[in-house]
Amino acid sequence: MTTVKDFNAYREKMNGKILEQGNINMKRFFALDTSTYQEGALDVKTKELLGLVASMVLRCDDCIRYHLGKCREQGVTTDELFEAFSIANLVGGSIVIPHTRRALEFWEELITLD
Amino acid sequence: MTTVKDFNAYREKMNGKILEQGNINMKRFFALDTSTYQEGALDVKTKELLGLVASMVLRCDDCIRYHLGKCREQGVTTDELFEAFSIANLVGGSIVIPHTRRALEFWEELITLD
Amino acid sequence: MTTVKDFNAYREKMNGKILEQGNINMKRFFALDTSTYQEGALDVKTKELLGLVASMVLRCDDCIRYHLGKCREQGVTTDELFEAFSIANLVGGSIVIPHTRRALEFWEELITLD
Amino acid sequence: MTTVKDFNAYREKMNGKILEQGNINMKRFFALDTSTYQEGALDVKTKELLGLVASMVLRCDDCIRYHLGKCREQGVTTDELFEAFSIANLVGGSIVIPHTRRALEFWEELITLD
Amino acid sequence: MTTVKDFNAYREKMNGKILEQGNINMKRFFALDTSTYQEGALDVKTKELLGLVASMVLRCDDCIRYHLGKCREQGVTTDELFEAFSIANLVGGSIVIPHTRRALEFWEELITLD
Amino acid sequence: MTTVKDFNAYREKMNGKILEQGNINMKRFFALDTSTYQEGALDVKTKELLGLVASMVLRCDDCIRYHLGKCREQGVTTDELFEAFSIANLVGGSIVIPHTRRALEFWEELITLD
Repeated sequence: MTTVKDFNAYREKMNGKILEQGNINMKRFFALDTSTYQEGALDVKTKELLGLVASMVLRCDDCIRYHLGKCREQGVTTDELFEAFSIANLVGGSIVIPHTRRALEFWEELITLD
Repeated sequence: MTTVKDFNAYREKMNGKILEQGNINMKRFFALDTSTYQEGALDVKTKELLGLVASMVLRCDDCIRYHLGKCREQGVTTDELFEAFSIANLVGGSIVIPHTRRALEFWEELITLD
Repeated sequence: MTTVKDFNAYREKMNGKILEQGNINMKRFFALDTSTYQEGALDVKTKELLGLVASMVLRCDDCIRYHLGKCREQGVTTDELFEAFSIANLVGGSIVIPHTRRALEFWEELITLD
Repeated sequence: MTTVKDFNAYREKMNGKILEQGNINMKRFFALDTSTYQEGALDVKTKELLGLVASMVLRCDDCIRYHLGKCREQGVTTDELFEAFSIANLVGGSIVIPHTRRALEFWEELITLD
Repeated sequence: MTTVKDFNAYREKMNGKILEQGNINMKRFFALDTSTYQEGALDVKTKELLGLVASMVLRCDDCIRYHLGKCREQGVTTDELFEAFSIANLVGGSIVIPHTRRALEFWEELITLD
Repeated sequence: MTTVKDFNAYREKMNGKILEQGNINMKRFFALDTSTYQEGALDVKTKELLGLVASMVLRCDDCIRYHLGKCREQGVTTDELFEAFSIANLVGGSIVIPHTRRALEFWEELITLD
């Protein structure tokens, strides 16, 4: 059960250090990374699915993990998740498969945490 | 008004030639490219938005154009589109901006075609 | 002599349209795209060279053109430019060569505009 | 001697879970991932080298490992492998070097397993 | 019949200008771009197919065109080419499709030039 | 304090093995990887910052670590480093954030090693 917690703890610790350094443009970028996913013309669930698929085709495991956590909070089902996986694999190609394996492993852990 | 029509005509002509050659795996890949976006646990509109954002962060103008056409058919509004744009730009970075410019130009043409 | 002017005009026109639509996160992203290159711990010339090389390895011709214009304003010499080219080609690989060809063509036009 | 076995075991386990979930497009994609490398106008050895170089320039370590295993089965020699490495590094740039280091380590383990 | 000739002429002209500037590392990189594809443990035909697939998954149209010309010189058949296309599309995803369309158009022109 | 040393040791060991195999084009590529960063029209510090940002937007952790070490040797300050980080994040997008977290962790270790 440690992967989710370890991931969140490391992410929080290092994000804190980045913000503490005080670079104004890094702080603005981090603020934008939050505001972009907030409720708007599209709902949060759709936006998190968009963030997930974008992260998958760009093959960023940590970004995938973050959005999986948010998708879980938004009530995304496993069937819906696999539809997002299928689009990411089709568009991004078979190089997305290893990230899909790791994404599913993280998702299974997220589900058991409830 | 020619960009949309020219794009569709060239795409259709060359896709036809690719399929005619008869390579079985290319044909399967094209078939999968259709079936993946069909109604399922996620609706077609959401899936087309996922395809659009994936295409934007991977910076494929022709893919963007194709999904813009589909998003228009699915009733995506300009406000919703810009939310997808904002996620694509945030996740993919400022290199997505030139593709956003061309996407908006194509979208404006799509709207005038109705 | 039209490539530079056409590029700047199209960029300005479409950026204007994107901002007019009023999506708050797109506006913030564009603002950040400006502030990030301003004088700070690193001077503007170095930052523009960083933006140029990042754009080259990510193979974004329009981004390359934009930063070439800024590099020219900052007094980057052709010898310095080629050193940036050599790093971009080494790190990004031979797929950067076609972008280097187009970058040089644009640079030559920029020089004649003075 | 554990890296090869661990890699194969994890890959097999998670691929099984992905297929079990029953998403039809993911299943088709996995089937295509197999059929595309089968004997055809090009022999399997050439196709595996193509898969290897594609995986290297896209910098997917797990994909590289998979194709290294297949290349070994097809009788690719270390000299041939290094020629594939040299093309991947040239085309993909110096960012491919770290993946080349890990690929060689995996290859050395594969050789000792015979 | 002009695309092939125009491509080759522009490529030759700009490569000449890049070399004339005299940056030693750019010259070495260009020399390496030639020597890497020469006969060795792998034959030239295989190496050009590797260069082609690498260029396709990295989605560099000009690189694709260059390697298509070389593949034609090496006697690659259309059936063999489509097998390379199928691997590039599978590994690189549906974003490779537009490049496959343009590759086929260029290939058809190359064939008529004989 | 082991990450920096482990990274350097593994890199040195595997680079040695790659060079020992004797592939002439791999050796030339490695030589070019050294000569490209040498003093020229741009100073070494600027060139290392260019290598760092290129590595960040291409998201190569090992490349980032290598250039962080070189930046440290060249006297890059933490404030300057964060300006490079801000450009890499802006141009490459939020997928660069996880690499920024790991880069900062490595940088903090580098500082303590003096």
